[in-house]
Amino acid sequence: MLPSGEIIWTGANTLKYASGYNLTQLIIGSEGTLGIVTKIVVKLIPAPTVDALMLASFPSNGAACKAVSAIFRAGIVPSALEFMERRAIEWVIEKDAIVFNLLPNDAAFLLIEVDGTNADMIFADCEKVNTVLEEYGCTNVLFADTSAQKEELWRIRRTIGVSVKSNSVYKEEDTVVPRAALPQLIAGIKAAGNKYGFESICYGHAGDGNLHVNIIKANMSDDDWNHKLKDGIREIFELTVSLGGTLSGEHGIGLVQKDFMPIKYSPIHFEIWRGIKQVFDKNYILNPGKIFNR
Amino acid sequence: MLPSGEIIWTGANTLKYASGYNLTQLIIGSEGTLGIVTKIVVKLIPAPTVDALMLASFPSNGAACKAVSAIFRAGIVPSALEFMERRAIEWVIEKDAIVFNLLPNDAAFLLIEVDGTNADMIFADCEKVNTVLEEYGCTNVLFADTSAQKEELWRIRRTIGVSVKSNSVYKEEDTVVPRAALPQLIAGIKAAGNKYGFESICYGHAGDGNLHVNIIKANMSDDDWNHKLKDGIREIFELTVSLGGTLSGEHGIGLVQKDFMPIKYSPIHFEIWRGIKQVFDKNYILNPGKIFNR
Repeated sequence: MLPSGEIIWTGANTLKYASGYNLTQLIIGSEGTLGIVTKIVVKLIPAPTVDALMLASFPSNGAACKAVSAIFRAGIVPSALEFMERRAIEWVIEKDAIVFNLLPNDAAFLLIEVDGTNADMIFADCEKVNTVLEEYGCTNVLFADTSAQKEELWRIRRTIGVSVKSNSVYKEEDTVVPRAALPQLIAGIKAAGNKYGFESICYGHAGDGNLHVNIIKANMSDDDWNHKLKDGIREIFELTVSLGGTLSGEHGIGLVQKDFMPIKYSPIHFEIWRGIKQVFDKNYILNPGKIFNR
Repeated sequence: MLPSGEIIWTGANTLKYASGYNLTQLIIGSEGTLGIVTKIVVKLIPAPTVDALMLASFPSNGAACKAVSAIFRAGIVPSALEFMERRAIEWVIEKDAIVFNLLPNDAAFLLIEVDGTNADMIFADCEKVNTVLEEYGCTNVLFADTSAQKEELWRIRRTIGVSVKSNSVYKEEDTVVPRAALPQLIAGIKAAGNKYGFESICYGHAGDGNLHVNIIKANMSDDDWNHKLKDGIREIFELTVSLGGTLSGEHGIGLVQKDFMPIKYSPIHFEIWRGIKQVFDKNYILNPGKIFNR
């Protein structure tokens, strides 16, 4: 729905489309600044009938992150590949009283799911994944044998966000880089933390190169939190962009991240975006101030 | 490269992107009217290691087209699924002296490829496809046993365009509809041909719902070809749109199809497109007149 109240369909219900400008993808991710989406058509793929889930422990963030792209290089495309720092799991255990035995050497984890329609192939994929994990210094693999165990492992991953929220004031960043650059990204995040005096809990969709960075206020002074921290976040985004990535993989920009947008984008980008905004929303009534300034 | 000569990167080299308007997808399919693409980054997936190819014959266009969506409903996602009318293959045989035995009952063909990384699964997929083909009235399946046979079958498919070109003056349409609507589309194309006096050779990427319609001049008068035919084409596009499809799946609009664009798009779409064109190309120097009028 356009700001005029007029309703248009963008695109067609087809797999291919070469008929005029692609407004569908322009609207997706425009955060309500160009129009309001009232109806969508999605493409479905056949549901997988078999899956396997394993949790792999590593002695360092770097080792876990290096294993991520190695899994893909081995020809496996996991249906999920999630990274979690030890601290993330510790907080989950505290909050939810989940029974999970952290070993002294466990610094970082990968939660890896493969799925398909053939049990033998899934088994072969798991073996390939295991070979890669061993090569990259994985110290332990917990293989979920039952759907209850799978649910338990997924519950750990899913509870991280809430457990951080209940433990501390925090800011969440949504960095995304080419998958192979994850080790440099996480090292840089920790280095920025040391420099600017903040702690962080990192986790997220490592298979997509998408790392959620939860910056924890903990003992930071209000002044440092409200002012000095911004320089640290800027440094994280500068690194992200220098690695070929961008400011947000899925959460968007909104009001909170828009000041950082010039790290990635030139004045020409802003000029084009402002022009497009003007085409759709002449009176500037849709989500004003989001993503970029007028 | 923008018309000003300035060069921008759109998007990032990441799997996910939620950082400002998606200019990449806006530029794709804009047919050179917004800028000139000088560099692209593509996503690669692991190469399949096994494939199988079969050619299935049907007693009618409708039967072949109905089988297309049934194959997907059986849970198979073929790596290629191409439709060919008998006439298309006849012309290929004539032109290229390919040895291929057409049976009297063969009216339409599907060329079906499945691929993957596991021979047993490919074999199981082929069996599932065969079951569907039998249910939908397929009269014969030619299974390519060697890579030479595969190449021969693909050569038949790939030669259609050239063989049409060498046989007759023709116009090519690039209709695309939801896959399940293919039977109605091809029936409607033939009905329009009967009504307006044109013959057509249909073939193409049926698995994508994308049907190339080669309209043959043959014995049509120049006057019918240059004037009356346009009404027939309009009728085909009206049908395509009524089935949820659009004017072009992959070839684009250019100058030739732009008069038909109002069948699918409202004046609001054109207003937005013109606005976007103006944002990128203030002096109207890039491919003027393509896709829509100024």
